[in-house]
Formats: sequence, structure tokens, C-alpha cells
Amino acid sequence: MTRGLRINGDRLWQSLLDMSQIGALPGGGCRRLALSDEDRQARDVFRQMCLDAGCDVHIDRLGNMFARRPGRNPDLPPVAIGSHLDTQPHGGRFDGVYGVLAGLEIVRILNDHNIETDAPIEIVNWTNEEGARFAPAMLCSGVYAGLFDLDFALSRTDADGLRVDEELARIGYEGDTPCGKHQIGAFLEAHIEQGPLLEQHDEVIGVVTGGQGQRWYDVTVTGRDAHSGSTPMSGRSDALVAAAHLVTAVQDIALAHGPDGVGTVGELHVSPNARNTIPGEIQFTIDFRHPDDRVLSEMDTAIRFAASQEKVVQVALDMIWHNPPVQFDTRCIDAIDKATRDLSYPYRYMVSGAGHDTCQLARKVPAAMVFVPCRDGLSHNEAEWAEPEHLVAGANVLLQAAIDLSRQVAPEARPIRQSLNTTGKSHTYDKELSR
Amino acid sequence: MTRGLRINGDRLWQSLLDMSQIGALPGGGCRRLALSDEDRQARDVFRQMCLDAGCDVHIDRLGNMFARRPGRNPDLPPVAIGSHLDTQPHGGRFDGVYGVLAGLEIVRILNDHNIETDAPIEIVNWTNEEGARFAPAMLCSGVYAGLFDLDFALSRTDADGLRVDEELARIGYEGDTPCGKHQIGAFLEAHIEQGPLLEQHDEVIGVVTGGQGQRWYDVTVTGRDAHSGSTPMSGRSDALVAAAHLVTAVQDIALAHGPDGVGTVGELHVSPNARNTIPGEIQFTIDFRHPDDRVLSEMDTAIRFAASQEKVVQVALDMIWHNPPVQFDTRCIDAIDKATRDLSYPYRYMVSGAGHDTCQLARKVPAAMVFVPCRDGLSHNEAEWAEPEHLVAGANVLLQAAIDLSRQVAPEARPIRQSLNTTGKSHTYDKELSR
Repeated sequence: MTRGLRINGDRLWQSLLDMSQIGALPGGGCRRLALSDEDRQARDVFRQMCLDAGCDVHIDRLGNMFARRPGRNPDLPPVAIGSHLDTQPHGGRFDGVYGVLAGLEIVRILNDHNIETDAPIEIVNWTNEEGARFAPAMLCSGVYAGLFDLDFALSRTDADGLRVDEELARIGYEGDTPCGKHQIGAFLEAHIEQGPLLEQHDEVIGVVTGGQGQRWYDVTVTGRDAHSGSTPMSGRSDALVAAAHLVTAVQDIALAHGPDGVGTVGELHVSPNARNTIPGEIQFTIDFRHPDDRVLSEMDTAIRFAASQEKVVQVALDMIWHNPPVQFDTRCIDAIDKATRDLSYPYRYMVSGAGHDTCQLARKVPAAMVFVPCRDGLSHNEAEWAEPEHLVAGANVLLQAAIDLSRQVAPEARPIRQSLNTTGKSHTYDKELSR
Repeated sequence: MTRGLRINGDRLWQSLLDMSQIGALPGGGCRRLALSDEDRQARDVFRQMCLDAGCDVHIDRLGNMFARRPGRNPDLPPVAIGSHLDTQPHGGRFDGVYGVLAGLEIVRILNDHNIETDAPIEIVNWTNEEGARFAPAMLCSGVYAGLFDLDFALSRTDADGLRVDEELARIGYEGDTPCGKHQIGAFLEAHIEQGPLLEQHDEVIGVVTGGQGQRWYDVTVTGRDAHSGSTPMSGRSDALVAAAHLVTAVQDIALAHGPDGVGTVGELHVSPNARNTIPGEIQFTIDFRHPDDRVLSEMDTAIRFAASQEKVVQVALDMIWHNPPVQFDTRCIDAIDKATRDLSYPYRYMVSGAGHDTCQLARKVPAAMVFVPCRDGLSHNEAEWAEPEHLVAGANVLLQAAIDLSRQVAPEARPIRQSLNTTGKSHTYDKELSR
């Protein structure tokens, strides 16, 4: 009787529009940095929506929010559906928010039809997925999955030195439940692709089988402040010129490991940053990603070599995060695959280019993802856009997969991996970040 | 009887130490941005020192300060000696300050010996020489010399949007005298070299015959914000990669026009500046300098060509300042030359690599400069250092040259140029700067 169930697309779209008003930017995007006042507003609205849908809402020590719709069997752990409500500084209206509100729409449609699932259904909002305010990204799903310590997460600071624990308390989202203790039977996340493949191939659903590996670096180049007019070129120790070489090297290294390799310098700070002073210090970040951890090791070697070639400055290159590729759970992937085919949506299997909360959770609980197209593959941009019918399709797949999985979850759910293509290196976050 | 007169080195040194306490930085340098609270403190201290030395102090509409010691002939315009009290964000203790306090020391030693000069002697503090807070540099000496309009200067804004006129009023240094009306018979400025030549050649005095030309640019590179993980390298429009190419091009162009050409990107801003977002916009500055304006034209052509080669982004390159090379006044140079040789200091003739207030003033009144060595040629740096005996030597040269010139100034002083090596292009400041 649930086979023909479809979500209410207008209601889903309206909830997305409503949420996009919080932290709205002039260009149509959103700025809801984690644990900011805007994040608090979004959480308050989301909590009320869940309460109105008859859910119990509880919050763990890191502000992760779990809204439960009971199931037939109270002994079963829930099928959880969710993502994050925080955004980039110039974020879009769909990244993260869609995954949370698709979960809400599933609960609402089950309510509309008085359908009781076997296991409970939960909607989840994970704290600080973006990492734009507090590095690293996917922080609190990472603690849930046992990849980071609680104290590490609580002590992360933003650019102004404000800590996660202080900001959680300030906005009133410091819950009681220990992070990671709350049981999840299976986790599903719907997300815009944030890349161009589905759109280029006229496909509606991405069945995501895992996530690529990432290595994040903090780099400091130390030269010497000096006068721009009276310091001959030969006597200079210009930190920005060296940093420019390394920005170019990141690009060249990614291209050399294409088409799957990507490399980005997203953040760069110049000191003293004055028009007529040769810059004495540059701090910047590097983000390398590839589906194969061995290739990431090669990229690591290459950037370290490039750094060693800068002779008139000092370069300190710290790998602050090593996140190996991850495989999602076979049962979860199969449930998504089956729902997609039943619904006759054009689809492809794919590996996620971006990191997502599911990439963390999949190391602890059965989990998988659904992607839908976004225009021009654009995300982390105010112009981010997804077609309403694609958002509906993704939520319908999630709905059917969730009902299916609610019959399968076991009291002690552990992920079943398809295969392990990691090199066995542990997931590490090496350094206390200062910002 | 004045031939044997020497300045009091201990007193000069003490006044430099006293001034360096205002806006002192932990590394031994100073931060006294123009029209900041620290600049106000420095001005208050300087004014009191001048009053204590028996001078009348008056202030023009742009906060330029003139402290006059009367001369024998009240009809003569003064021999003015000065520089600036503002500093870079991480500035040193000598840049500018030395020139002002050397003027003060000259007045004090004339007082000590009851010496009456023919023309009055004035000590001058020019507002906003550095340009670190309000671009362009040498703003208020530039208005004095007729190179900028008063309204242009008053409407300059800092990074927070605060205007020069507002900040002048706030710190109480908005005077009555129209800027440029106050007569100067000859202008002398002592300054640390801010370059390595005197030190490398064991010389104590630089007789400065002019200043090199400068061209300043504001550059905006516009790409497209996008997700760093899921945007393939081939689909990117990465503004920072393009900016890195242009930073490298500035370096290469300067090296290709060596050894006299210099080129610097001192300021660079990344937007949105997030670790996992491809930067969509970069704003940066370029500072090109060379003693020959024709070479500066070639450097201009080269950077415009480099900008045109960036195909996946848009580059807007605006030359905001074109300051042709300047020649100082023959009589003033001769007075400095004679004093230096009389005092038997090792010296060289040189062209200033940096811009100075004198480079502006020399287009309107007879003017020249004295350089003294600084350690490692370092300036615009907290570690900036000058040997006390070199500072004394420079002030002694200035003292003798000032006494000499006080006998020569004419009621309507106009500079006598040695030669004109400019191409005849006018000094232009093309653009309303937004910061």
C-alpha cells in the first residue's frame, strides 16, 4: 500500500523557500554560519516544524538535532534522514537544507496517510557541516561517528576566537545526550550533486556509493615585510610571490591527476596587506580530493616538493586533515537503487565529489545518499539552483528507501561495506586549528 | 659662526624614542595609521614639543602642521623641514618620524645658541604620507603641491568607509588655513633610505636628486564561486589561480626591467575566502616603479598583456595613479651637497626608490632630500633600524643646508629643475578609490 505514496512537492518547495528567508542574502543565497544567530533561527523554525508534525525533538551535546516519528516496533533503532541547516558565507538555498526538509516532508506525508513504519523515522540536523566558521567540516557528524573526540569539537574556534561550546550555549542548543550514543539503524541523505554530471547526462537521480578522499592543509609562507619602492627585486623575500607559485602548483598538481583529482586554495590571508609593503607573511589553505587514497599520497608528495622549491621564503605545510575515501552500505545503496528503478527515474551510480555528513556516519552506521542535479553544477554560491521536480524525485526515492529500510534495520546496526578501497590509513585530524 | 654648529644627538635620539612609544607594537615597531587615535597622540606630543621650543603652530584644512621659528626678515617665506608622523600598519620607528624630529632638533639647537636665521625655519608634519589607511599615499603634500584637489583628499575613505574629513574633525586636526596657501621658500626632508645602497657602500649621506616614477593599479579578477570538492578542474573559473598568475607576472615584469624596475602586489583580498569554496573574486593592488617613465609605459603594456591572457575569468585592471619621475631643485641639492662635503661625510648622489612628501612638494616649491642608511635596507617593517650616528649626520647636513638656504630664499620661491626626464605626461590620479 505504500508503493504508490508520493511526497507533496508544493509543501516541500514552500518549506525550502521559508527556510531560505533566514540569513537571506541580496543575491538570492543564504548566510547561516554554524551556531550564528541565523543558525539559531533556522533551528528554532525547524524544531517547531517537527513538533507540529508530531515528532519528539532531542538534541545532543553538540547541538545535533534528532526529531523522531515513532514506529511500530519501539525496540528498533530509527531510519534517520537528514543533512545540515548551516551554510557557506555566500551559500545557496539547497545545500544541506534540502536533505533536512526532505526528511521533514517524508514524516509529513507518512502522517497525512496515517502510515506506521516498522522502525521509527527520524529527521536529523547535523551541526557545523560546512566548516566555514569552525574547521574542520562535518565536525559533529564526525564526533557522532567516532572520528573526532568530543573535546576536540567543543574547543574548535572561529576567526574571532569564539569556541563551539560557548556558541552552542549562547544560542541554546547544547543538549544533554552524549554525542554518538543515540542509536541510528540506517542513515539516508538527499543532497544536490554540487557538480555537473547528472545535468550533463540528463539524469535525475545519483545513487551515491561512497565519497572521495580529502586532504586538507594549512600553509604559512614567511618572508620579510619591506618597502615596495626602495627594495630591489634581488633583495626581496616576498611571501605573496611564493604563495602565488604554490597556488599555481596546486592547480597544476590537480590537473596532472585528472580527471578525478581536484585541488583548491579557497582561503588566503596577506600580512600586513598594505599597498606599498612587500608582504611578509601569507597563510592559505589547500584542499586536495581524489577517489583513490594512493593518488592523494602522490598529490601530497608533489605539493611538498613544490613548497621545498621556494628558496627565499620559509614554507610550513601542515596536513591538518586526512579523510580516506569511504564506501557506503550495500543494503542502503540497494534500497535507493530499487526505489529509483521502481519510480523509473533516469539515474547513475556515482562517487560524491564533496564531503557530506553521510561520509562520516557511514564509518559507524549503515548509510547512503541520493543526489539530484543542480544547475551548472554550481554550489557554495548564491546562484545555486535545483529544479523543483528534481527535488521531488529525490525525496520520493528517499521516502520509498526509508520505508523499505524500516523493515530491515537490526537492533545493532553496523554498515555492510561493498569493498574497501582505502589504503587502511586511519582518518586523522592532525592539528589544533587556530581558526 | 654657524659653520661649527652641530645638533644634539642624544636629544634627537630621545625624541625618537619618546615618539616610538605612541602606537608601539610588540616587535619594536609602530602602528600610527593616519588620523587614528595614535596619530592624534603623536600630533599632540609634537605640537607641545614645538610650543615648548617657542614656535607658533598652525594647521591647514588637511591637518598638515607647520611650526614656525621666526627669522630676521619677516617678509621671507620659511625654509621648511619635515616629513610625516603616520606609519604603516607594521611600521618602523624612523620612517617619516626622523624627518619631523630632525626639524625639531634643528630649531632646538638654533634656540640653544640664540641664532637668528634670515628666513624663518618651519617644522612640518604632512598628513597621510603612507597611504596605508587612505589611498593614495602622500595625499596632503599632494594637495599642497596642487596635484590633488582638496575635495578629493577630504573624501578619501578607509577600509571601514570612514572619510578623511570626518576623521580630521574627530581627532581635532581640521585647521583653518587653505591647503597650499601657506608659503614655503624651500623644503628639506631627511629620511632613512629604505633601501640597501648606502649601507652596502659604507656611505652615510645620500644626496637625493629626485624620485622615481610610480604607477599604481587596482585589479579585480572575477571568476565564479563553486564547491571545491565536486567542481571538476575543467569547469572552474577560479579567480585566485588567475590572480596568482598575475602576481607572478608582476614579479617577472619587474625582473625583466631590472635592476631599476620594481613591482609589488602588496594587498590582496579573497572572496568569499572559505576553505572549501573556489574563490569567485580577488581584488589586489600593483605598484610599479622605475626612474624612467618610458620604461614604466613598457611595464604597463606588459601587465595588460598578462591580464588579457587569463581566459576563464574577467580581469579589470585600472591604473589609479600615474606619478612621473620628479627632479629636485638645484639650489637645494647644492646646499645639501655643500653641507655634506663640509662635514666630510661619505656620500652618494641617488634617486629615491620610495615616494616621499618631497616628491610632491618639488613640483611646486624648491625642495630636496637627505638620505641616511638603514639596516639591511629594511623599512615598512617593525625591525627597521638606523644607527644613531647616521641620524645625527643627516640632521647636521640638514641644519647647515637650512641655514645656508635661509639666506637664499626669495619671496616667491619656485623650483629650479636640473633637467626634466619626465615624458611630459601629467601626474594623474584617475579613479575614486573605494578603499
